[in-house]
Amino acid sequence: MEIPVRIVLVEPTHPGNIGATARAMKTMGLSDLALVAPKHFPSEEATARASGADDVLGNAAVTATLPEAIGDCGYVIGASARLRGSKWPVIDPRSCAESIWRRLADNRVALVMGPEHSGLNNQDLGRCQEIVHIPTNPEFGSLNLAMAVQVLCYELRMCRLGSSVAAEETRAAPLASAEELEGFHEHLERVLAAAGFLHPVHQKQLRLKLRRLFHRARPDRNEINILRGIVAALDPAAGHTEGRGPA
Amino acid sequence: MEIPVRIVLVEPTHPGNIGATARAMKTMGLSDLALVAPKHFPSEEATARASGADDVLGNAAVTATLPEAIGDCGYVIGASARLRGSKWPVIDPRSCAESIWRRLADNRVALVMGPEHSGLNNQDLGRCQEIVHIPTNPEFGSLNLAMAVQVLCYELRMCRLGSSVAAEETRAAPLASAEELEGFHEHLERVLAAAGFLHPVHQKQLRLKLRRLFHRARPDRNEINILRGIVAALDPAAGHTEGRGPA
Repeated sequence: MEIPVRIVLVEPTHPGNIGATARAMKTMGLSDLALVAPKHFPSEEATARASGADDVLGNAAVTATLPEAIGDCGYVIGASARLRGSKWPVIDPRSCAESIWRRLADNRVALVMGPEHSGLNNQDLGRCQEIVHIPTNPEFGSLNLAMAVQVLCYELRMCRLGSSVAAEETRAAPLASAEELEGFHEHLERVLAAAGFLHPVHQKQLRLKLRRLFHRARPDRNEINILRGIVAALDPAAGHTEGRGPA
Repeated sequence: MEIPVRIVLVEPTHPGNIGATARAMKTMGLSDLALVAPKHFPSEEATARASGADDVLGNAAVTATLPEAIGDCGYVIGASARLRGSKWPVIDPRSCAESIWRRLADNRVALVMGPEHSGLNNQDLGRCQEIVHIPTNPEFGSLNLAMAVQVLCYELRMCRLGSSVAAEETRAAPLASAEELEGFHEHLERVLAAAGFLHPVHQKQLRLKLRRLFHRARPDRNEINILRGIVAALDPAAGHTEGRGPA
């Protein structure tokens, strides 16, 4: 999935950050990088830090000014480490991603990052329709440039993937049926009674607790068979024949 | 806003990544860093890359093994660059953050990151209740270690700043610590061996399966005590005295 959003670094001073930015972009599926008056570029350090994203570096556009880098873009967002609440509309990276995807079909979009130490100046911020701010620790807002790009690109990707790619572990077998679960619990309870572990007083409470615990684990059929095998192997009523393997 | 989540780096090889991790943590309000057998630490490069987060580096715990680093944690999540779809339940950074905030009130929580090149091995993954995967570009998944920490910590912060998260089932007791879980697994494995159920061939596979099953259930301290009591009661090596109750 290619994410056609341009990342623009304005006057980056550390080549390492240029490389790390290229790498961050590529891990999230972005490849359009523009550099405005970079202090050192190309550079070995940038290539080293890109560690494999050389193509992004190689295709990077280098311009003298910001207007040249964003001239063809219909939607331009500037990143700011400071909350300029009074002066500019500020959005967080998640709203930024949503706002970008809403416009991507019809517009070229650029995310503009300022120089490491000063950030974007007011003239450059004035060229942006919106300002994105990553909510950092008020006592320590020193977010590295490439780290900020990573977070912004990550949100773009998450937004595209839909809020969650959370996958339930795929099972080797279907979940155990209620009947199979019941069979296991009855078996376990028989064996615990035989071992004198379940006595009348605690019985009801304990049964409930064990059911809650094992149901939370959502055992599949294989796992229930393993558990049945264990209970059988540990049944004091049954003699323990050596070398019995899992069911 | 301090976010009391421990970041654990297992055998980090590049000091720069340790420093960048400390910086990433502090920008998001985290400060509890643990280093398991770091190749070089302390180091000038780590301090340089921390650029101001020296306190996080200075307070970092250095341990020889992962169990020492997570022993007091009730909820342990491992990060993996690979989607181990078949083997482990995998969540994305957003669900991971929600899941952590649901448990933070009652539990110590650790986020475990593997070595740069290999990632966490299966034994270490077996010590985690859940696996978080950052959805990277399938053609270029090479996410830098500190970048991954930045993204995970960013989601923790966003989640905290964002709305309240539905609380999970209320427990009578805090979740069992990694140490307590390990103690239970060792006890169970001893007893299964004594019963001739665990034999060398299946052993490794079976151990992994049992860990996955019980970790999915996220047992609390009471439940682990019940399980220990059951295993003790069913230990063929021990005589079965009648009427023994739950521990």
